Amino acid sequence: MQETYIIGVDIGGTAIKFALIEEDGKINHKWEIPTERKDQGSYIPEQIAKSVKEKLAELHITEQQILGIGAGAPGYVDVQNGVVYEAINLGWKDFHLKQRLEEFLNMEAYILNDANLAALGEHWTGAGRDSDQLIAVTLGTGVGGGIIVNGEVINGVNGTGGEIGHITATPHEGPKCNCGRQGCIETYASATGITRQALHVIETDQNTTLKDEYQAKGKLSSKDVFEQAAKGDQAAQSIIDYTADVLGKMLADLAVSINPSKIIIGGGVSQAGEQLLQPVRKSFHSYALKRVADVCQIVQAELGNDAGVAGAAYYVKQRKQF
Amino acid sequence: MQETYIIGVDIGGTAIKFALIEEDGKINHKWEIPTERKDQGSYIPEQIAKSVKEKLAELHITEQQILGIGAGAPGYVDVQNGVVYEAINLGWKDFHLKQRLEEFLNMEAYILNDANLAALGEHWTGAGRDSDQLIAVTLGTGVGGGIIVNGEVINGVNGTGGEIGHITATPHEGPKCNCGRQGCIETYASATGITRQALHVIETDQNTTLKDEYQAKGKLSSKDVFEQAAKGDQAAQSIIDYTADVLGKMLADLAVSINPSKIIIGGGVSQAGEQLLQPVRKSFHSYALKRVADVCQIVQAELGNDAGVAGAAYYVKQRKQF
Repeated sequence: MQETYIIGVDIGGTAIKFALIEEDGKINHKWEIPTERKDQGSYIPEQIAKSVKEKLAELHITEQQILGIGAGAPGYVDVQNGVVYEAINLGWKDFHLKQRLEEFLNMEAYILNDANLAALGEHWTGAGRDSDQLIAVTLGTGVGGGIIVNGEVINGVNGTGGEIGHITATPHEGPKCNCGRQGCIETYASATGITRQALHVIETDQNTTLKDEYQAKGKLSSKDVFEQAAKGDQAAQSIIDYTADVLGKMLADLAVSINPSKIIIGGGVSQAGEQLLQPVRKSFHSYALKRVADVCQIVQAELGNDAGVAGAAYYVKQRKQF
Repeated sequence: MQETYIIGVDIGGTAIKFALIEEDGKINHKWEIPTERKDQGSYIPEQIAKSVKEKLAELHITEQQILGIGAGAPGYVDVQNGVVYEAINLGWKDFHLKQRLEEFLNMEAYILNDANLAALGEHWTGAGRDSDQLIAVTLGTGVGGGIIVNGEVINGVNGTGGEIGHITATPHEGPKCNCGRQGCIETYASATGITRQALHVIETDQNTTLKDEYQAKGKLSSKDVFEQAAKGDQAAQSIIDYTADVLGKMLADLAVSINPSKIIIGGGVSQAGEQLLQPVRKSFHSYALKRVADVCQIVQAELGNDAGVAGAAYYVKQRKQF
């Protein structure tokens, strides 16, 4: 019998990532192409199909050997029908991604939100592989989330499940969020949010080395905040502590509802590792019901940029089993 | 073929409620007995079995006609093994409820937390009957919760799923909670919490009619707060508004994670009806992501004291189907 594979696709605003994945989760091949965004991203399905066909031909694999294709989009998804309600970065609105992919490819397509896929990926082969109840947080340009209960990701009634970046940290005050509200977690704990805090600090604090960094480079990033804190800058450390406090409180409140065994922190900001995780754990324990905190580990994501494609493949595998 | 039934049991600190329920959810008979709490509640399983046997004999129903018995306990439950980790009001610790019930009764027993059962009950035949994604809140002596995702209740890794009464409303300040922490939702939004707020107000506000009520009766209840507010007392109205604000914020943060179609408010305090629900809805909409609030209705529970027994029966039905 010929080996079967699953194709995982992670559609981002800049690049589309692909992986050919074996049924046990092993990534056989991975590749990426730049996202074609013209005409409200209407060429993306064709682009994906073309790239998949080329790769399969190159590897001498037939479409019949593919169990299915899973694709993640950065937006709200109607998983039942495979429609992306809205993905602002791609220009999509009520975009029938499943149907379009199936037009071009002779395989079944499954669609999910990208942060939810990242959670499923970590659950399958990453930091959550032994955990059927977990919360995954992605700290990138924004703050995304995926919640897994009994091994299934929470998608919700209109694709908004796990949108934990919009949990309110500072009610009716604080920075304006893209969602139109104020004080969302995302405005503090994303890379953008941490940078914003840093820019605010250098306006008022004369002594911070963040100021020197900014003057030398003409810009600041969240990475600078972690680097300067590591070198002993108090202001930078205060930003980390505040961010960790906000995150720890949010995760504690969520954990008392979900009662997970793992909280997995991923995304660019998580590359700070223990420098971020330690204060988050401390804050989490100060806010969480003891019984909940006792069984919940806070760990770093393991799959990095592969989490999305792995999750997309796992989602196909899960659906095919039902 | 003889009709089959399910037995639902809701074990409380004062009374044990029973119902004989048909497979479509119709309550055929219900009854209750006082809880025997002596010797750390060790007689409760025998008590339950005796009462069930008597009722079945009276109704000429055999144990073979019973699909199973579902029982809810006010504590943390290991649903896999049917063990109650801890139920303080009953005196139970690592109590093997499933095993004990099955010793005395010739039927399979299933155990769940009582607030989770109430959520399942409302989901089956109550206010959530058309909703597979819902959050149920019970505002009683404490604040309990049950979260249903894809029709299944979230129990969590050590039985703490849905313990939303311990979400933090006021970090590191506010009233001390039974859990040892401060500022939990429960310390504000439970009947006890609302009464506590009222007692605090009459110490400082000379003009509130709550003071007259207290002097006349020697005590206050959460019901007094709603009654005096309805009569125009500003201080009482402020307590309701604050409570609704705290609840609305908590529910908005939870809804952006779960993305439910219904939030169901039950328990004694919910008998205030629209007087409570209207300000909660207002607060919820001010804190929730618009896309989440747009699809989520906040409604009053419908089953009252029957929610637990109905949910216990439904839980048996669900498990038997797998």
